[in-house]
Amino acid sequence: MREKETSGSVLRKRTLITRGSPQQVLVFGFALLVAVGTLLLCLPISIAEGHTLSFHNALFTATSAASVTGLVVVDTGTTFSYFGQAVLLLLIQAGGIGFMTLTTMIALMIGKKISFRERLVLKESLNQNSTEGIVRLIRKVILYSLVIEAAGTVLLALHWMEEMPPGKALYHGLFHAVSIFNNSGFDIIGGFAPYVGDFYFNVVSIVLIFLGSVGFIVLSDLIDYPKNRKLSLHSKVVLSFSGVLIAVGAVIIFIFEFTNAASTGALTVAEKLLSSLFQSTSLRSSGTSTLDIQSLRQATQFFMVIMMFIGASPGSTGGGIKVTTFAIMTAAFVTMVRGKQDVDLFRSRISKDLVYKAITVMFVGLFIVVSATIILSFSENQPFLTVLYETTSAFGTVGFSAGLTSQLTVFGKTVMILLMFAGRLGPFTIALALQSKAKKDLYRYPEGKIILG
Amino acid sequence: MREKETSGSVLRKRTLITRGSPQQVLVFGFALLVAVGTLLLCLPISIAEGHTLSFHNALFTATSAASVTGLVVVDTGTTFSYFGQAVLLLLIQAGGIGFMTLTTMIALMIGKKISFRERLVLKESLNQNSTEGIVRLIRKVILYSLVIEAAGTVLLALHWMEEMPPGKALYHGLFHAVSIFNNSGFDIIGGFAPYVGDFYFNVVSIVLIFLGSVGFIVLSDLIDYPKNRKLSLHSKVVLSFSGVLIAVGAVIIFIFEFTNAASTGALTVAEKLLSSLFQSTSLRSSGTSTLDIQSLRQATQFFMVIMMFIGASPGSTGGGIKVTTFAIMTAAFVTMVRGKQDVDLFRSRISKDLVYKAITVMFVGLFIVVSATIILSFSENQPFLTVLYETTSAFGTVGFSAGLTSQLTVFGKTVMILLMFAGRLGPFTIALALQSKAKKDLYRYPEGKIILG
Ligand SMILES: [K+]
Ligand SMILES: [K+]
Repeated sequence: MREKETSGSVLRKRTLITRGSPQQVLVFGFALLVAVGTLLLCLPISIAEGHTLSFHNALFTATSAASVTGLVVVDTGTTFSYFGQAVLLLLIQAGGIGFMTLTTMIALMIGKKISFRERLVLKESLNQNSTEGIVRLIRKVILYSLVIEAAGTVLLALHWMEEMPPGKALYHGLFHAVSIFNNSGFDIIGGFAPYVGDFYFNVVSIVLIFLGSVGFIVLSDLIDYPKNRKLSLHSKVVLSFSGVLIAVGAVIIFIFEFTNAASTGALTVAEKLLSSLFQSTSLRSSGTSTLDIQSLRQATQFFMVIMMFIGASPGSTGGGIKVTTFAIMTAAFVTMVRGKQDVDLFRSRISKDLVYKAITVMFVGLFIVVSATIILSFSENQPFLTVLYETTSAFGTVGFSAGLTSQLTVFGKTVMILLMFAGRLGPFTIALALQSKAKKDLYRYPEGKIILG
Repeated sequence: MREKETSGSVLRKRTLITRGSPQQVLVFGFALLVAVGTLLLCLPISIAEGHTLSFHNALFTATSAASVTGLVVVDTGTTFSYFGQAVLLLLIQAGGIGFMTLTTMIALMIGKKISFRERLVLKESLNQNSTEGIVRLIRKVILYSLVIEAAGTVLLALHWMEEMPPGKALYHGLFHAVSIFNNSGFDIIGGFAPYVGDFYFNVVSIVLIFLGSVGFIVLSDLIDYPKNRKLSLHSKVVLSFSGVLIAVGAVIIFIFEFTNAASTGALTVAEKLLSSLFQSTSLRSSGTSTLDIQSLRQATQFFMVIMMFIGASPGSTGGGIKVTTFAIMTAAFVTMVRGKQDVDLFRSRISKDLVYKAITVMFVGLFIVVSATIILSFSENQPFLTVLYETTSAFGTVGFSAGLTSQLTVFGKTVMILLMFAGRLGPFTIALALQSKAKKDLYRYPEGKIILG
């Protein structure tokens, strides 16, 4: 009871101070984070000796870090000092776990404004007592995130100690554990290509990426699983669809690149499998790669565009239209093919409102990616697929590059900065920001028919 | 009353003979048409002197004609004799008006299996007395189609008489009036590039293309408009969304190509406007072009891909996911942004079933285009956008070529043949063919929530 009041008053105070909707707080806070990050990166103390950084590149890097995208215009490991790298790590932590906490809070807070029946549905579907206990939930997940990051740090540092001094290995372990768990795509070792066949590194990274990309609710559900022995509907949907997407992605990459000498062609079959699985896990949000994206086949790159567009889970460190949006659209498709009336997922009915929202999220996502692709097709002198790949990667805050980012004009960089910003906010938040005050429908029009096909 | 019985017994007999669903009749009839066309084109009498035609190219051409696509692997004007061109014209007529009649009949026949209330909705929304009067409706629209084609023949022949002998002008007028009204994309004069600034030709063609692409129901509605003074919901949606898409397309093409010396750059502003409007009208299905598609900018080509995917109207001579599907998705987007409960179009409520069906149609369309694009990215050694352009053009039975069709491997031609076939059937018919017997929902699952963004 005390918990509930505390949580309530904190939320009320925050809203009073900013006099804005939660979405506006999100946009404003995110912009502030990028601004502070840019200023800090512009300080001489952030730059390694013998290097320089333009304001535009500082802004690009800060946005890329705060949006946990990982597209880079300068090499992170050599351009930045330890101080600069620490700034990046804080931006990644704030933009990853911090943002993830905030968006989940907003999603759960919706429970405050809805009817009692809907609140029950929300409680049942998310295993959460709606706004009650939000503060406790958040405290718990931040704690566990830090524990996962700490474990990752140790596991990676132990591995790197074999090839570098302990202090450096620990630093590398810390940087990359935080970077990989937050799906940031940043690294300070010039890429992970040398680790393409390293089983230990691959497995640790896959687990870190996966835990970061499933999102807050699922993480909390997984943590409580040994106690509760049940998963929420939301977690079931996220875990099953993510699992299928990862498996399909791994198989496709494995087959498509099997004979490509420039990528996995020269590897053993076991290494091919490992790198395909790693790439597929990393694909929908992380951006950590052991392969050279530019050398992948066109068909593989196009397939990756689709997966990057789908993206990770809501309230996670990842972007895209989200795996739940994809799940609902798939379920609507199955509904029609099976000749049923209701859209069902795991023996739960998905309301038509949620389906319409999924359409909206997809629409907003498509509009952003298509517009940016058309604009950059004009401004940057590059093949179409290279442009499409990069815009989708930025929108999905993935960070894989097919070669455009390193060649961007100043105008092109500006478009990409806006894309990463919009991508981290996500199409749902953007759609909500577009939304006018919900009006109660006072009347219904009579039903009308249109022919479809 | 007599009319009703006649119509009913005709339909019952057809179903008895084939012992199949209307969709299966459609697929079988279409396949038969392609087969007969291929055999006829393989006859020596079909080929012009000094030319040859492989079986594969005959199959490709017959499919392209019967599906009113217009992608060509040989030059129609020089390769085929008058007999061969007559075969093509009959294939185009059967695949255009014939197929359009059949699909509309199926859409209206749905009225036979549904409840009285739903039948009333259908009647009101389509201005049609459901299955009653179907035969009369079809007789009327075929008659008017032939009248439009005859008028087009005269108008075009008169124009061509200025530059060729009357007999040849009349033949050219007939071939192109039928070809353009059916949105077939075929021509026997080696392309319409010389007519890019020809105001008369452009206006006549735009009217023919538009009337052919709006579909049966709208055509019938337009014909009855002077008498009824009202349009059905279906017609309102088709006409308004087609109008907006044509206008937006014209503006985008006008702007994007303004300074492109290889396309409209050298034209006067009036000619630029005219060719942009022509191209935009032709874009979503016709495939008749006064510009060289290959010389258009990447951004323009990508924009065209989206428009070709959306396509023309249901029950028309065009393809794509259909403008009504796009309209419903747009309306669902607007619903959510306005914070409303129902999807409305022109003061009519669109049922959730129809919205789910629209999602299904889009899903099937995306799946077909994406799969074909990935396959042809492997088999054909071409830039990605060239492949994507061609697969979308074939799926939308548009017929514009960015250069791939003339370079296709035999395997690639096979994929394109299947694409044109599937494109003419349309994603809705394919989705219906996938559908299992509609089961009455005997239970509903409790509602569940998932987080989207
Ligand atoms: K990333
Ligand atoms: K066509």
